[in-house]
Amino acid sequence: MSPYTDVPFSYRRRVRWGDCDPEGMIYTVRVYDYLLEALEAWYLKVLGLDFGGLKYERHMAMPSVRQECQFMKALKPGCEVDLHVFVERLGNASISFIVDAVGDDGSHYLRFNHTACFITLDGFKPVRPPDDFRENIEAYRAAGKRMT
Amino acid sequence: MSPYTDVPFSYRRRVRWGDCDPEGMIYTVRVYDYLLEALEAWYLKVLGLDFGGLKYERHMAMPSVRQECQFMKALKPGCEVDLHVFVERLGNASISFIVDAVGDDGSHYLRFNHTACFITLDGFKPVRPPDDFRENIEAYRAAGKRMT
Amino acid sequence: MSPYTDVPFSYRRRVRWGDCDPEGMIYTVRVYDYLLEALEAWYLKVLGLDFGGLKYERHMAMPSVRQECQFMKALKPGCEVDLHVFVERLGNASISFIVDAVGDDGSHYLRFNHTACFITLDGFKPVRPPDDFRENIEAYRAAGKRMT
Amino acid sequence: MSPYTDVPFSYRRRVRWGDCDPEGMIYTVRVYDYLLEALEAWYLKVLGLDFGGLKYERHMAMPSVRQECQFMKALKPGCEVDLHVFVERLGNASISFIVDAVGDDGSHYLRFNHTACFITLDGFKPVRPPDDFRENIEAYRAAGKRMT
Repeated sequence: MSPYTDVPFSYRRRVRWGDCDPEGMIYTVRVYDYLLEALEAWYLKVLGLDFGGLKYERHMAMPSVRQECQFMKALKPGCEVDLHVFVERLGNASISFIVDAVGDDGSHYLRFNHTACFITLDGFKPVRPPDDFRENIEAYRAAGKRMT
Repeated sequence: MSPYTDVPFSYRRRVRWGDCDPEGMIYTVRVYDYLLEALEAWYLKVLGLDFGGLKYERHMAMPSVRQECQFMKALKPGCEVDLHVFVERLGNASISFIVDAVGDDGSHYLRFNHTACFITLDGFKPVRPPDDFRENIEAYRAAGKRMT
Repeated sequence: MSPYTDVPFSYRRRVRWGDCDPEGMIYTVRVYDYLLEALEAWYLKVLGLDFGGLKYERHMAMPSVRQECQFMKALKPGCEVDLHVFVERLGNASISFIVDAVGDDGSHYLRFNHTACFITLDGFKPVRPPDDFRENIEAYRAAGKRMT
Repeated sequence: MSPYTDVPFSYRRRVRWGDCDPEGMIYTVRVYDYLLEALEAWYLKVLGLDFGGLKYERHMAMPSVRQECQFMKALKPGCEVDLHVFVERLGNASISFIVDAVGDDGSHYLRFNHTACFITLDGFKPVRPPDDFRENIEAYRAAGKRMT
């Protein structure tokens, strides 16, 4: 069952032939493409810029610090899932997401935990995110509800 | 300039951060993801099934026979292109596509030639495509116009 | 510093240009290619077959159940790392690995935790691994030493 | 049959599980990973630097101009091939390769044509390659023999 009552932002993804291995199921590595695609779409929607914008407009980056994936149910070619993006925690210089891949029938395929760190490109040191980022993230976080 | 006056089917693709290399331009290998994504979307639209449907419903496959790519202009993170799919030729057991990646300002980034072969999965021999495929492909081909 | 005194099996990997993003550092998704390459090489070495052999010779699979990655230090084009493969636990139907990516100077770049499940391809149910697998895995596990 | 009597440089590659699709054969896009891996290894061997070295030490790049691939025989998980790298032509600012993927039994799986252009990173204009590159490439080219 889907773990949600409300979803502020979702990224829809169809499982492509080339995402799958000779067993006819999604190949392990490809699930992280789904995660990163969902996150880049979330940045564009919530922060107003994608990863390129972070670098070229704000001279920042948000490298991954820790990722976790639980593989609950195997995705097959032609399946469609929504990747629901929740902000679990906004720290001083870090942000933690939970991203769930859920099918139209409520099947829960994947759960990701992703923590990234805000850094500046001169010095590569962790920094507090700019105020506009912080406001948008907090507003997004407040809007999300998750049941489980 | 875009080589089109009319486009029967296009697949829109945003250049993602992870598609690009340390030079800040699309990495060579990734352009073929764009091609295959466009082709799989075309199959779904025109033939009514994706590559998985070909295998599991029709017990066929369409392996690549020959591909060519001309790199005209470098794609950068955040660019959006339409991949216009033309059917150049439908043979007895093969099909040839021209796929062009064109930006909103008409810039021509990539041109692909792609030839695939229809085969059955029992025997892996080239076969004439089923009549419904042939009709849909010919109708699609008749609708397309390309200037250059 | 490297967390090892002894390493039963390592997989050496050079960071390729195409593994890296416009920041000039490894792109998040690619690190899982490193993990899976190391694991497939380990299967071939320790169990005597790769993932294809598992399917075609033993009619089994070992889907991922849970993965975790800690990103300690950024990999850049041309870096070389050894991926040291430790078996943390062999359960009734599951196996857990710790895989560390370590540079020649002892720098610790990545730590992965990977848990997979043994299943049969008729029924896709968890099964106890065959005796020859179990013996080889236990022998490998006994040989490994890790300091931290 | 293999098209060679002599091979100056080859890159050996094992077909991995994750390179293959649900048909149990190599997925089209992945063959270009093989090509680029072979080329990057060739640069390191013949020019003394990889693609990162080109950028960071010589302030140059060698973007792809045109690529072609003929798919002769399907690669399956566990196959091993040698990618033989021939220099077909060294132009004023461009270089053209033929790269063949050949099995241990002489089976010819893939033929690539790859043309790249030398550019400088200030201006992104085509340039004549440095003399040391030119000498090494001409020497390599003279050593190669191909029958077909």
